[in-house]
Amino acid sequence: MTGISSAQTLLKSHRQQFPALANKAYFNYGGQGPMPQASLEAIQQAYEYIQRGGPFSGEVNAWVVQEAKQTREAIASSLNVPSETITLTEDVTVGCNIALWGIDWKPGDHVLLSDCEHPGIIAGVQEIQRRFNIEVSFCLLMATLNEGDPVTVVTEHLRPNTRLVILSHVLWNTGQVLPLAEITDAVHSYASANQPVRLLIDAAQSVGLLPLNLTEIGVDFYAFTGHKWWCGPEGVGGLYVRPNALESLHPTFIGWRGIIINPSGQPEGWQPDARRYEVATSAYPLYAGLRAAISTHQQWGTQQQRYQQILNLSKYLWQRLAEIPEVIRLRKTPPQSGLVSFQLTNQSHAKLVQFLENQGILVRTIRDPDCVRASIHYFTLESEIDHLVKAIQKFC
Amino acid sequence: MTGISSAQTLLKSHRQQFPALANKAYFNYGGQGPMPQASLEAIQQAYEYIQRGGPFSGEVNAWVVQEAKQTREAIASSLNVPSETITLTEDVTVGCNIALWGIDWKPGDHVLLSDCEHPGIIAGVQEIQRRFNIEVSFCLLMATLNEGDPVTVVTEHLRPNTRLVILSHVLWNTGQVLPLAEITDAVHSYASANQPVRLLIDAAQSVGLLPLNLTEIGVDFYAFTGHKWWCGPEGVGGLYVRPNALESLHPTFIGWRGIIINPSGQPEGWQPDARRYEVATSAYPLYAGLRAAISTHQQWGTQQQRYQQILNLSKYLWQRLAEIPEVIRLRKTPPQSGLVSFQLTNQSHAKLVQFLENQGILVRTIRDPDCVRASIHYFTLESEIDHLVKAIQKFC
Repeated sequence: MTGISSAQTLLKSHRQQFPALANKAYFNYGGQGPMPQASLEAIQQAYEYIQRGGPFSGEVNAWVVQEAKQTREAIASSLNVPSETITLTEDVTVGCNIALWGIDWKPGDHVLLSDCEHPGIIAGVQEIQRRFNIEVSFCLLMATLNEGDPVTVVTEHLRPNTRLVILSHVLWNTGQVLPLAEITDAVHSYASANQPVRLLIDAAQSVGLLPLNLTEIGVDFYAFTGHKWWCGPEGVGGLYVRPNALESLHPTFIGWRGIIINPSGQPEGWQPDARRYEVATSAYPLYAGLRAAISTHQQWGTQQQRYQQILNLSKYLWQRLAEIPEVIRLRKTPPQSGLVSFQLTNQSHAKLVQFLENQGILVRTIRDPDCVRASIHYFTLESEIDHLVKAIQKFC
Repeated sequence: MTGISSAQTLLKSHRQQFPALANKAYFNYGGQGPMPQASLEAIQQAYEYIQRGGPFSGEVNAWVVQEAKQTREAIASSLNVPSETITLTEDVTVGCNIALWGIDWKPGDHVLLSDCEHPGIIAGVQEIQRRFNIEVSFCLLMATLNEGDPVTVVTEHLRPNTRLVILSHVLWNTGQVLPLAEITDAVHSYASANQPVRLLIDAAQSVGLLPLNLTEIGVDFYAFTGHKWWCGPEGVGGLYVRPNALESLHPTFIGWRGIIINPSGQPEGWQPDARRYEVATSAYPLYAGLRAAISTHQQWGTQQQRYQQILNLSKYLWQRLAEIPEVIRLRKTPPQSGLVSFQLTNQSHAKLVQFLENQGILVRTIRDPDCVRASIHYFTLESEIDHLVKAIQKFC
């Protein structure tokens, strides 16, 4: 008991670094993570520094280059990849778009998506289909939540003309974690020598949640954001581009950050690494905010330890939800991620979410499957989960 | 004298709202404007609000929609256009890319640029040339700084297959202001009935500097940023899309902000207005920062009054530079904008910029033409200009 209560004391002290946690029970990490005070302060200090030294000066301009470099390095370290593979973007969706539009599409090329991708990504693929006359099809992974093998489902849908497979590492609706290394192997094995099949991963729900080694997994494009499980500021994300995919992925939205210029100011090539996909002026002060958020989590434990704690707490919520007769849990086995989705047999999901928000408990609805999603982070309290369960019971 | 000195007192009090002006003589508004304290505070307050009410909640999500709406409205009001024509972007370059990639290019289409466009934009056009096999040519506007007619130069370079003309409203290197209404008329008159010629304007140096009525000018696409002459935070800009050009300009980078979804969460169309080009999560707290910056300038005077003051002060710098024998001013007549560019007959421009930065005077070099650029805002002091001129004299 001493060990547990001292861990609880440590956790409560750790949580005090997140101002947003003070006045509510928070279960929307999959939407946006609460920023630690250190992030907010780092952003503030960056603004002050920029105004003091510039804003536009040789000194500040050199500092911006260093800030971007350090941020790519912090991200790369978490993903176990070289920092040259990281592009800084505004959000996960921009990262997906860089991969989508950078392929030299030919009419008749095939793109395979799962049925659990975000509507914004689907709309982007549909626009590429319209412009380049490609084929688009979907494989049904939602149905593999409780039975079946996602690797088999994906593999069965590959075609000789498949050039890109788009999946999420953690499915945003059901919380299922796809076996990415196995899928990547299967997809890459299917490719012919002269036409690779690339794998683009929407990592909105995996970065900051799962321990990751992208070098080992071997995925081609991995798009993520800093503002969900990393709890960084909204407006900073990134894209990992596997080194052997860099030369064949062309920059689309282009600006001064991605190019090199000659002495007379004319463009004469791309940056040698994944910086080539960065465009122009961004909200640079936020870079320090993201790094501070990543550091804050590392103070509590390794990514592996944090993931284990997320699993423990998610399992606890999943178990407790079984006590409410009107609740149907989407998963028949304990969660693999921090996303716990459930349905009500007799009530509107939107009404439950509003009922809970009115008393300071934040969850969200998902449209497909029609359900409610609660997110659990490593610093969620068991008492918060008890509070959520009690409120759902009351609503039902 | 009483009127002048009371104006000087008012100006000094107005300048105190900009912390960056306290410790230097600032002449890099064309690079980045110093943020008013009200902007910094609005950003801080927005972060606090988001953390208090969310960060992800029904309340905060509704607030974000309102913040974006109010920001499009504030921008639209300054440009004299309906707010439905405004897309919020990360920067001016993203706005240019939306216009560049949204046209349904056919092999053999022609794009005309001036020889004064930013290298990032040139690189983007070159990538479109490579992908779609279009023709690209340049018209020489740099040479019209002191003689000749830009309207004639542009018109002479139009071809029957021209589909897009790309120009800057204020040339970033020489500070020349192009007669945009006349050029737009000439370009649109050249178009055939079934193939319009569109005009994309890089407005990096004009928004926040010139009084603007884009509805009257009739330009098709006008891309701008909030962080230069408006003195807003880096990382927020926008694109104006003329209503009759909206349907033919296809979204390229696509995300949830640009689409509408049906009850089962599937994409089923674009937003009805220029929001269709917005992608996904941005640094929302900065929107309030930009609006606060725009308001701060309005407290001092109308855009017309601010522009007149910029012209007065630029002329003063231009006149005083004539006192230094080693200085060649690019313009033979007083400036039309806040950009004053000059060359040294006997010294390195980079060394002058470094020499000045060492004593807290900020200007920048330009590579083509090889020169030094000093920017003047409406709140620049005559004494700052005197200080700059004296330091250049000392260096020479």
